[in-house]
Amino acid sequence: MASTQSPTVNRQWVLTKRPAGDDFESCLEWREAPVPTPGEGQILVRTIYLSMDPSNAIWMRQASYIPPAPLNEPMLGLVLGEVMESHHPRFKAGDIVSGLGGWADYAVTDGKGWGKVPADGRMPLLAFTSVLGMTGMTAYFGLYDIGRPQAGETVVVSAAAGAVGSMVGQFAKLRGCRVVGIAGGAEKTKWLVDEMGFDAAVDYKTGGPKELRQALKAACPNGIDVYFENVGGWITEVVYSLLNLRARIPLCGLISQYNAAEPQPGPRNMDQLLVKRCRMEGFIVLDYTDRMGEMAKEIGPWLAEGKLKWKVDVDEGLDGAVKSLRKLFSGGNVGKLVVRVGAEPAR
Amino acid sequence: MASTQSPTVNRQWVLTKRPAGDDFESCLEWREAPVPTPGEGQILVRTIYLSMDPSNAIWMRQASYIPPAPLNEPMLGLVLGEVMESHHPRFKAGDIVSGLGGWADYAVTDGKGWGKVPADGRMPLLAFTSVLGMTGMTAYFGLYDIGRPQAGETVVVSAAAGAVGSMVGQFAKLRGCRVVGIAGGAEKTKWLVDEMGFDAAVDYKTGGPKELRQALKAACPNGIDVYFENVGGWITEVVYSLLNLRARIPLCGLISQYNAAEPQPGPRNMDQLLVKRCRMEGFIVLDYTDRMGEMAKEIGPWLAEGKLKWKVDVDEGLDGAVKSLRKLFSGGNVGKLVVRVGAEPAR
Repeated sequence: MASTQSPTVNRQWVLTKRPAGDDFESCLEWREAPVPTPGEGQILVRTIYLSMDPSNAIWMRQASYIPPAPLNEPMLGLVLGEVMESHHPRFKAGDIVSGLGGWADYAVTDGKGWGKVPADGRMPLLAFTSVLGMTGMTAYFGLYDIGRPQAGETVVVSAAAGAVGSMVGQFAKLRGCRVVGIAGGAEKTKWLVDEMGFDAAVDYKTGGPKELRQALKAACPNGIDVYFENVGGWITEVVYSLLNLRARIPLCGLISQYNAAEPQPGPRNMDQLLVKRCRMEGFIVLDYTDRMGEMAKEIGPWLAEGKLKWKVDVDEGLDGAVKSLRKLFSGGNVGKLVVRVGAEPAR
Repeated sequence: MASTQSPTVNRQWVLTKRPAGDDFESCLEWREAPVPTPGEGQILVRTIYLSMDPSNAIWMRQASYIPPAPLNEPMLGLVLGEVMESHHPRFKAGDIVSGLGGWADYAVTDGKGWGKVPADGRMPLLAFTSVLGMTGMTAYFGLYDIGRPQAGETVVVSAAAGAVGSMVGQFAKLRGCRVVGIAGGAEKTKWLVDEMGFDAAVDYKTGGPKELRQALKAACPNGIDVYFENVGGWITEVVYSLLNLRARIPLCGLISQYNAAEPQPGPRNMDQLLVKRCRMEGFIVLDYTDRMGEMAKEIGPWLAEGKLKWKVDVDEGLDGAVKSLRKLFSGGNVGKLVVRVGAEPAR
């Protein structure tokens, strides 16, 4: 990889305008600029892995839990990288760090929101982009803190073959639940059951709401106690119709809505949440960063014993990042999707 | 009133079919039948007040938290009545009771779900159809248990001039909150501020979503911390756009949806619940009946000191009940709406 990187050129995808509809391709422009120089209190980070997340589509468009991605700067993205130069007391050259950086070879930051990754060689670096990173935390705290599944209950997760979904299902199994995934395509549903240990998985692409309802009902003979929401839209409506009394809905994502030109209607059966006395609660993983240790303590042994599997789908090269993001929304990936921007440091 | 009641005839509105769209008038038929005779373990209740509730429209149509109202029987309704004859150990003739009865002069019941009302003369009987009945409990537990408002927070309630809404606002004021009501028409908004002590009230009928948002934003300079949901539809969408971080939404009713011919879309900005980390929770007052004492203990002093106001809109006569129900959905009532079916017993 080193040959594709120049120490003087900072390749980058610049956000030039806000997407209309789902056409984000026309809003990102490939540019080359000089590598920035860190000032007092700043660090220079070299990007190793760039995380592809559904939320990228939100950041391009509008303010959310963070301000919108600035125009005419490298697009915002979660980065796992190496500190190349530090004028910051908390970091030193060679540290492996993660934080909100850019779609670029290099970023300069004041370190706010950035953390050091315990890359001691016991776990591959890629683990910190997935199970030991934001993905794992999203699944862990969303399911356990908001969903609060009890042994014997049925947990359903949508976008189940995605980064977060496949973790949610495994975490639910580890709490003794029946776990059912909703995913698109036979390959994904097979992977969920055979590799990720889901009790069942239903393919939403084989039909419409009626067919999904039938399949989901068969897979959830005791109804649904926790629905981990990643998608929104008609799939949500189907799930609502099968909720049990006092079901819980961690609201993690609404991927079916992010690229829509017009705001999409919510589920037409919100009354189900009323008559079934359900609780729905939105959450953002950034609220849980200070509880990372709590999670690591519990899942460390699971990882060591092989009870928890994780899969990262690695696309090669920053130049393909726009295509990688499209893959995320067209359902082309299985597990966590990252772009390899630069080489891992030699150990 | 006694002259309109016969001891042998049981006047009643019978549900003959399930309404299509909002035409419930054609589904209720006026009939006269003999007064039923209670058997072993049963009581005969004479209806004094029949409660008009938005949920009546649900019961006519479908199963919800209770089975649908049976066809070819008197329509289901909450009744405050007098026990005329008892073959049940828990009740005696002369008891004032409340429970799920029928749109009729008389009902026979096995007493399940019926309770005695402490009609000791200190409070008017009508109080037990409103502030000391299901209405008060809905507002009290929905707001305090689910909404959990803190002093200084802003509480918004829709259908604010309705039975539950006007109580919610007062309960929120008594916890030190800023209270804003959404209601239809200048008369109602004036009543909320002048009589019920709301800090502000906005009239959703003076414009569309844009105008309501403007008015609501002005009335809630610090945003919205608790939204007590009674209506659904476009009003909900406007409220969602002004929610604060970690806002709570007790989901009490969706009156805008109940009479729609087709299921209505949910709010198009559910993403607000995600990015603001909000909690929405459905509840049904019937789950709280065993905590009635807890409520009575707190609000008793408020009632005695005149800190809590309640208003019952009494329509005269069972024969007008269908028109009364329509009034509920066309926004024609202020406060709790009941139909006087029979005379209060002489004290």
